[in-house]
Amino acid sequence: MNHLIVAAHPNPESFNHAILQTAVQALKAKGHEVVVRDLYALQFEPVLTLEDFSALRTGQIPSDIKAEQEYIASADVITFVYPIWWTGLPAILKGYVDRVFAYGFAYAYGKDGTIEKLLPGKKGLFINTHGTPGEIYDSNGMTDALKKTSDVGIFEFCGIEVVDHLLFGAVSQVDDAARKEMLKQVEERVSSLFQV
Amino acid sequence: MNHLIVAAHPNPESFNHAILQTAVQALKAKGHEVVVRDLYALQFEPVLTLEDFSALRTGQIPSDIKAEQEYIASADVITFVYPIWWTGLPAILKGYVDRVFAYGFAYAYGKDGTIEKLLPGKKGLFINTHGTPGEIYDSNGMTDALKKTSDVGIFEFCGIEVVDHLLFGAVSQVDDAARKEMLKQVEERVSSLFQV
Ligand SMILES: Cc1cc2nc3c(=O)[nH]c(=O)nc-3n(C[C@H](O)[C@H](O)[C@H](O)COP(=O)(O)O)c2cc1C
Ligand SMILES: Cc1cc2nc3c(=O)[nH]c(=O)nc-3n(C[C@H](O)[C@H](O)[C@H](O)COP(=O)(O)O)c2cc1C
Repeated sequence: MNHLIVAAHPNPESFNHAILQTAVQALKAKGHEVVVRDLYALQFEPVLTLEDFSALRTGQIPSDIKAEQEYIASADVITFVYPIWWTGLPAILKGYVDRVFAYGFAYAYGKDGTIEKLLPGKKGLFINTHGTPGEIYDSNGMTDALKKTSDVGIFEFCGIEVVDHLLFGAVSQVDDAARKEMLKQVEERVSSLFQV
Repeated sequence: MNHLIVAAHPNPESFNHAILQTAVQALKAKGHEVVVRDLYALQFEPVLTLEDFSALRTGQIPSDIKAEQEYIASADVITFVYPIWWTGLPAILKGYVDRVFAYGFAYAYGKDGTIEKLLPGKKGLFINTHGTPGEIYDSNGMTDALKKTSDVGIFEFCGIEVVDHLLFGAVSQVDDAARKEMLKQVEERVSSLFQV
């Protein structure tokens, strides 16, 4: 399968980058094609502007948006790897969604005003880390809210089927062995989820 | 009271800007002091970088972050005005939170690892618009998820008491009279919420 992994973390030495590398290697080892878009490395421009709106309206898609849309169009599976910041996406990734998942590409309105999902048939995966222990976010409803505003609010809105959403909590506090175990979970999960 | 209103919409002619103006006028009419930070007009830089992390760690707060922190420090009430984009904040505002609500300014860790909320005593208000009808978001749980990831995930995390969260749905579909009614609600609500 063709995989697109979009990653958003400023530090190449971060645990998020270790997750990214683990996922890439596991997928390649199984014979998948993998394209990585590392938004910080690309210095992706995240602010959806009035100029973007005008350009998109007339079908003149800005070239940086167009390039990312082509990666999405070619992908069977889209994976987002990012740390939870302020119970949401880091701004650079939020802006990737704001700009790239544009009207006419990711969704449109049907004649009767209903929403047309323009990315059906694709699968989606989220891999997140956060500082709060998982049990706390699970019990106070934040885990559900995080999934609702990403699984439902982003991927499913466009017809992308969310096959899993891995959340690793307390990553700032746990020891190296626990982190290795998390990377093992990433490896096992991505290896088993997708058949070439 | 001293009010800080942070607004995030690329179009000065938008309904969000009408909400912003309505809120500013209502507050000023009651004798409040109001500072507006219009993030698009300011071309606020939303990407939290590795350089920011290093600078913040050594107490060398980048000047654009410092300026915004001073507006927050001086405010009794902080209001965010923005359209819901992909069930979250527009990237420019998400990045304002990522960068400005920094460790050591908005929160810190106590000796025992517990979180210290560094902005207690301040009040917070959210005013949002979205395209989906309110009844749909109310019944499918999205309204709750939106509040959870902003009221709880951002303001309350820092000790800011959320006094209200106004959400105006179906704004893309309703007529002018309905929009006027929404602006009237904004005016009445901000006028009654805060005593000078
Ligand atoms: C700007 C910022 C905001 C954060 N917000 C949250 C949050 O809302 N909830 C949470 O549990 N952890 C939060 N954290 C902690 C990060 O999620 C955690 O440090 C990260 O997932 C660890 O992975 P890394 O080592 O790859 O950065 C935040 C960290 C930063 C820098
Ligand atoms: C990039 C983008 C993403 C959007 N995402 C959502 C969404 O997740 N849910 C929703 O109900 N409306 C969504 N909308 C609709 C906007 O919320 C709506 O157009 C806006 O609130 C109208 O206010 P305005 O006229 O001031 O822009 C989105 C619009 C844009 C441009």
